[in-house]
Formats: sequence, C-alpha cells, structure tokens
Amino acid sequence: MNRKVIAFLLGHILLLEAVVMIPALAISIFMAEKASAWAFGVTIVITAAAGIALRLIRPVNMTFYAAEGFVVTALSWIAISLFGGLPFWFSGVIPNFVDCFFETASGFTTTGASILTDVEALPYGLLYWRSFTHWLGGMGVLVFLLAVVSVSKGAGYSLHLLRAESPGPDVGKMTPKLKQSAKILYIIYICLTVIEIILLLAGGMPLFDSLCTAFGTAGTGGFGIKNDSIAGYSHYIQTVVTVFMALFGINFNIYFLVLMRSWRAILHDEELWGYLAIMASSILLITCNIAPVFQYNWGEALHQSAFQVSSVMTTTGFSTIDYNTWPQFSRSLLAMLMVVGASAGSTGGGVKVARIIIVFKLLRKELIRMLHPRAVHTVRVSGKTVDNKVGKGVSVFMAAYFAVFTVSFLLISFDNMSLETNVTAVVSCLSNIGPGLDVVGPAGNFSQFSNISKIILSLDMLFGRLEFFPMILLFSPNLWRRKV
Amino acid sequence: MNRKVIAFLLGHILLLEAVVMIPALAISIFMAEKASAWAFGVTIVITAAAGIALRLIRPVNMTFYAAEGFVVTALSWIAISLFGGLPFWFSGVIPNFVDCFFETASGFTTTGASILTDVEALPYGLLYWRSFTHWLGGMGVLVFLLAVVSVSKGAGYSLHLLRAESPGPDVGKMTPKLKQSAKILYIIYICLTVIEIILLLAGGMPLFDSLCTAFGTAGTGGFGIKNDSIAGYSHYIQTVVTVFMALFGINFNIYFLVLMRSWRAILHDEELWGYLAIMASSILLITCNIAPVFQYNWGEALHQSAFQVSSVMTTTGFSTIDYNTWPQFSRSLLAMLMVVGASAGSTGGGVKVARIIIVFKLLRKELIRMLHPRAVHTVRVSGKTVDNKVGKGVSVFMAAYFAVFTVSFLLISFDNMSLETNVTAVVSCLSNIGPGLDVVGPAGNFSQFSNISKIILSLDMLFGRLEFFPMILLFSPNLWRRKV
Repeated sequence: MNRKVIAFLLGHILLLEAVVMIPALAISIFMAEKASAWAFGVTIVITAAAGIALRLIRPVNMTFYAAEGFVVTALSWIAISLFGGLPFWFSGVIPNFVDCFFETASGFTTTGASILTDVEALPYGLLYWRSFTHWLGGMGVLVFLLAVVSVSKGAGYSLHLLRAESPGPDVGKMTPKLKQSAKILYIIYICLTVIEIILLLAGGMPLFDSLCTAFGTAGTGGFGIKNDSIAGYSHYIQTVVTVFMALFGINFNIYFLVLMRSWRAILHDEELWGYLAIMASSILLITCNIAPVFQYNWGEALHQSAFQVSSVMTTTGFSTIDYNTWPQFSRSLLAMLMVVGASAGSTGGGVKVARIIIVFKLLRKELIRMLHPRAVHTVRVSGKTVDNKVGKGVSVFMAAYFAVFTVSFLLISFDNMSLETNVTAVVSCLSNIGPGLDVVGPAGNFSQFSNISKIILSLDMLFGRLEFFPMILLFSPNLWRRKV
Repeated sequence: MNRKVIAFLLGHILLLEAVVMIPALAISIFMAEKASAWAFGVTIVITAAAGIALRLIRPVNMTFYAAEGFVVTALSWIAISLFGGLPFWFSGVIPNFVDCFFETASGFTTTGASILTDVEALPYGLLYWRSFTHWLGGMGVLVFLLAVVSVSKGAGYSLHLLRAESPGPDVGKMTPKLKQSAKILYIIYICLTVIEIILLLAGGMPLFDSLCTAFGTAGTGGFGIKNDSIAGYSHYIQTVVTVFMALFGINFNIYFLVLMRSWRAILHDEELWGYLAIMASSILLITCNIAPVFQYNWGEALHQSAFQVSSVMTTTGFSTIDYNTWPQFSRSLLAMLMVVGASAGSTGGGVKVARIIIVFKLLRKELIRMLHPRAVHTVRVSGKTVDNKVGKGVSVFMAAYFAVFTVSFLLISFDNMSLETNVTAVVSCLSNIGPGLDVVGPAGNFSQFSNISKIILSLDMLFGRLEFFPMILLFSPNLWRRKV
C-alpha cells in the first residue's frame, strides 16, 4: 500500500473542501449569522490546515493500483463527512457531533436522511452548505478533483479513482482522456443545474430556495429547506423538480452522446429506455390507483404520481404529499422502485436499472439454454456482450449488499425499534434514498436512533454511495500489510 | 416438447398419489369419520382414474431433455396439490376450494402456511393427510417415484427429474446409478423419521401425534396438529423435535457419507460446518439476549432459543412460544435465519447455506483480486472449484427470486394489507417457511387474503420449492412451441 500517495491525495481533497466552504461562509456573513460565520471560519482554517499538512508528505513514488484508488476514495469520503460536519457542531445548531457526521454523510452521499426535526430553524449559511453537499457528492468529489486540478502528471490513478467513486459498472468509456471525461461530466452537470435554477426562478421561487432545491435535485439527494419539503411550492415548480429529478437519474453518458449527436447510440441504449419505461408505466399505474383519492381529478393524480415516482426511483426523496395514506398497491410499487433505483452513471442510488437488465437477460438466457441445450446464445446489453464475469460481478455486488445489510440490521436492532423501521432504515441508507417507513418514514426522521446506530447508518450511506468495495477494503485486515 | 412422455409420467404421479392416500382413508374408516372417509374414497377413485387415463397415452419415443424434466416436475406438483386438496373439499371441512389448494400446496412444498384457524377441529384422517403431504413433499414426489417404480428402462430422464425437483445445486453426485441414489436417499429419510417417532413415543407422546409431528419435522414443514403447535408437549419432546429439525436441515449426502464412513469428506464439507456454525452461534446469541425474559433461567432460555433457531433456520415453522415478544435483536436474527435457510440437498428451504458460502467466497476472491491484481486465486467450496458459471448461476437464482417476488408482492397488495404482512407473506411462501409477520405472524394465518392472492401465494410456494426454473419455464410462451 503506497501510504504516501494516499495521504497526499487526501490532503488535496481536504483543501478542496475548505475552498468550497467559502460561499457558505460568505452567506453567513452576508446574512449576519454570527454563530455560523464563526463556525465556517474555524472549520475552513482547520480543514485547510489538515489538507496542507497532508500535502507536505511527498510521495517517493507514484505507484498507484486499484487498491490505492479504493482506499483514497473511502478515506476521502469519511474525511469530508467528518470535517464537513464541523460547522453544524461549532455553531451549536446540532449539539451532538455524531448527528453532525450523520447529517453530512447523508448530504455527501445524496441520501437525504436527516436527524433534524425542524430544518426551517437552521441559519441560511448552514442550509446552503447542507444542500451543497448533495450537489458536490452527487457527481463525486474525486471526479471534481480530477476535473479541476492536475494532481500530477501520471494519469495512472485517474482511472482507478473514477472507477472507485462512480456508481454503476460502465464509467470511463466516454473518452480515453480521463481528465477530459471528468471535465465534460462536470460541465454537463453544471449546465443542467443552471437550467433548473433558471426555470425555478422563472416560477417565482426565491434565489436561495432555487439554489438549494436545484442542488438537492441535481445530486438526487433530497434535503429540503422547508419542513414540508416541496409541498408548499407551486405546481409549476413541483413539475420542474419532477422533470429534473428524472433527468438527473439518467446516465450522464447519454448527455455526452447528445452533445456528440450520436442518436444511434442513444436509440440503442437499453438502460435509458428501460429506465424511462419503468418510470412511465409506474406513473401510469399509480395515477390510476390513486385517482379515487383525488376524487377522480386525473390531472392532480398524474401530477402527484409523477412527482413521487420521479423522487423515489431516482432516490432523491423530496416529497409533496404523505403517500403513506395512498392505497397499498401504490405504496408497494414505490417501495419496489426504491430498490430498483436510477441509472448507472447518474447521481441516483439503488441497485441501478443496468444491473436489473443484466440479471434479467442472464435469466432469460438460462431459460433459453434449458429449452435448447445446444444453442449458443450471447447476452448483449446495449450492443455489448455480457459474459459470465459480469454475472459474477452482479452476484458479488449482491453478496456485499447482503453482508453489510445483515451486520447493520442486527447491530441497530439493539435500539429495540420496530422491524419495519430497522429494515427500511438500513435499506434507505445503503441505497441512498433518505426516507424509510414507520419511525423513519417521510413524516419522521432518524433522530431517535442511538449514537452507535447513527454511526452504523452513516457508514452504510458511505458503503452504498461507493458501491461497497472501497469501504469493505478499508475494513479488510490484510489491506495495510500489503506491499506495493 | 415431448408431450406424451410428460402425460405418461404425470399419470404415474397421480396413481402414486392415489396409493399414498389409502392410509388416510384407513384412518378415517377406523376412527369412524364418515365425511372424510367418503371424501378420501372419492378422491382416490378420481385421482387413480385420472392417472390411469394419462398412462394410456403411450409415448412414441422416450426423448427426454432437461426441459421435459422441468415441465413434468412443475405440472406434477401443481397436479398433486390440486388432487390432494380434494379430500378437504369433499369432506366439507374447508368449503372454499382455493383454500384447499393453498393448504395442500403448503403441505407438499413443506411451507406450513395455513388458512385454518382451528386445526384441532379437523378429523384425524385429514390431520394425518395434511402432515403426510409434508413428509412426501420434503424429499420429493418424483424422487419417490424413481426410487419405487421403474417407469421405463431409459435412465435418461431420471437425472433431469432429480435435478428439477431437488433443492440446491449439488444433487446426483452420490452415485452414478440414479435409481440407487434415490433409493438410498429415501431409506435414510425413512430411518431418520422412524428413529424420531420412536424417541417421541418414548417421551409419552401418543402414536398419532408422534407420526404427524415426525412427518412435519422430516419435511421441515411445520403443520402442527395442535393450535399451539408444539408448546403443549414436554421439554423432552420439544428437545427431540429441536434436534431432528436440525438433522433434517443437513444435506442428505452427509448421511450417505456417514454410511460410507467417509469421515474425511465430512470433515471437509464446508456447508455442513457453515450450517452448524451459524446455528450454534445464533442459539448462543439469542440465549444471552433473551435470558432476562426468562428471569435469567439460562436452561430455559437455551431451550427456547435452540427450538426457535432450529425451527426457523430449517424453515420448519413449529413453535413453542410467541417470539414476537422477544427483544428486537433476537427477532431480527431469526428473520435473517429465515432468509439464509437450511442446507442444499436437505428438506429445508430458503436461499441455502451453500449459496451463501459460494457468494461470500466470490466476494472474498474479488477483494483479494483488487489488492493483488496479478495473483491467481481459485475459489473452492468443499474442495471443488467454483467458477464464474456458478457465480452467474447464483445471480440468475437471485434474479428469478426477485422477479417472482416483485410480481407477487404487487399483485397481493390490492388486498390492502400492511406492507409488513405482504412482504413477509411472499418471502415466507417463496422460501417455504410458513409464518411471516403481522397478519401472517406465528399467531395469525393466511385466511384473510382474497382468493386471487391465495392462488398467487400457493404458486409462490411451488416456485420456491422447485427453485423457480421449472415453474418459470411452464409460464414461458415459447415452451410449448418447441420441437424435440
């Protein structure tokens, strides 16, 4: 393990965090929020100092393998969640540091689970920072680093970092130049966010609200700045949010293909069409199912259905209504959409539509093989051959999910909450959704868990966001003994 | 598709069912239960007639592939559940035929889920038949057919039938002579059952109770003949049941190895030791967790913990206590054991310990590969190499589970039961467990579901028992168009 390179990169990340905190400090000063201005000031100094100290460690060699990529990624995400939680603590807004860590991890991982019962009581600076963590975490902090800074000449680790951080199995295929890729991804991301902000402003939403709402949408995070989330805003604004949640759940390669005018490739992208088909049919089914709830006002039923489906499937977690009162079929369908999740290579969480398509194609192949034992049948997804290795990859992912789920679920059960609460809390954190059911439902929050459970659930969010391997490797006993 | 061979074999199975119903008829006559004696008489005549009619179809050729094996298996299990439900219907004990189908499918698949609210009201003949379906279904009806009757000279389909019916990925490795294998399996099964009956009788349990309890244990089914399941019997009897549930959850190959004195092979069987390790550690953890519930009477805590763990992990479903009142950690651990299930090649259900070991070994390999990209590392389970194909097999199994779960879960949600009820009802049926939580908890039953939901859940039990592929193939549109 090349510890010096790891420390060096970690230093870079902390410096970056200190820099991106400056706007929050500015807002705090501008709004004359003394406590939070002070808190951000101190945090920026501490974080920057830690970053500079780590950067003083000069790596002897730049040897960098996948393992180093995973470790840097895991450590970076833990570090930014710890340092990013400091403003909440120093300002006294969240007195328990475990809660600060939970809230920040929830932000960066775009989970959107909260321990706060009254977000409207938060000062503007902190509200901004809380929503901004969604935006930064959505596309990835290391991707940002790659896009913005040239850390070193060796491009060897760019690929490893990009792979370790980005959700889904298919990153790095856009262009062979990775720095270029990272830049393009961020440009698309920024453009989409800006368009959403403009559309929200056009609907009469205040600038601050527009910024925070767009951050929460872009990262598919779901932190709101109102206690009733998006329910209080106009239908126009809710519709804008609906559309943009869906857009941010699409693989960003698609937008790159749009820029390249590769319409053919888009037409043959099975995940895109699978994602849209699942979303459209779910909206339709739920609209029909909830029409009686809205006295057969079909327009309103469609509006509510579309918002909830878009929010849940992309694992954003914004809400406009308490869907716990809806008929059981709609609730069950929404619960299934949480598991499915968004597209690979998007900012959304969950198992991902790509994986679902792969396993179902493998299943279909298996059935065909049983009927025609001698036929040769190749599984292709979006034109690319899926071999046994991919099948194995999916089962390994499921195994990791199941292992982390089991350990977390058993450990938090000592809090003696209901089974429904515990199961949905862990799934919600692992899939970066936000709300669960029962105590952690859309109307509740995570504040009732013990400190130990909150730490476990925070780690679960990180496990889920980084798709298990970086975090599991970190806990692997023979990792640190490894020689380069 | 060789339809004639399928019909011919189906005829055999129905004749077999008519024959094994005779003891139930005898018991009904002996106990002077007129309604059920009449019901069994009529059912035997109808079933035998259907069987003979189907056997009149003489197959032109005996071409028999895996597809035929799967179809025969799926159709046989549906047929025996339909015909086996007739005595409940004709006797008027269960007036709704859908309920009869549900109860019989639950019996043959060794699920043990019931729509009955008062089993003690059942006549002896029906109680016997209900428990006997567990015994027959546990080891498999087609395996029984292979062991008892020489259906034809061609041994070609024996392997396909055995594979289609037996749970777990490793059947047919015992001896190259399959008829011999099937016979040995059944002899071991009968011997273990007889030993349990003798031990139960030694504890003062009436003969009838001993028979039915042993049937329920052997098949890991869980139908009781008392409303309080096993709670009313002595500690000695409960201990015998505990030990035998655990024994029937072991891969039957192990008993074959004991007979062959292959101690070395037993010592290296990872599933056996994994199964025992999970069971022992769960018993220990739950004992410590529930000790306060029993005022630190450690003996009683250990006794209750061992019974519940053995019952739940082997997916039997007998109970001695309402564990819903236990601390959440114990309940959660029991819920996880339901998912894990028993060993492959045993009569138990669930995902199976073998699959869990395989995916975790693949996960470990993946982690090692990340640390040492160039190292060659072969995954072995019990000395045999696990390749990517096995990994793919496990993901295909998971995909099938997920697909059937999703469809069933959404369809039964129209009954507007709670989410907890619906999720656990489907999982319980797919894993052949029996009880779920909430409405379908240990104290409740499945009677409140609509007819459509009951049919779906009955099919789920069959899907789970046959490990998905036979049943999925049956619903596959291009199956019947297939030419041999």
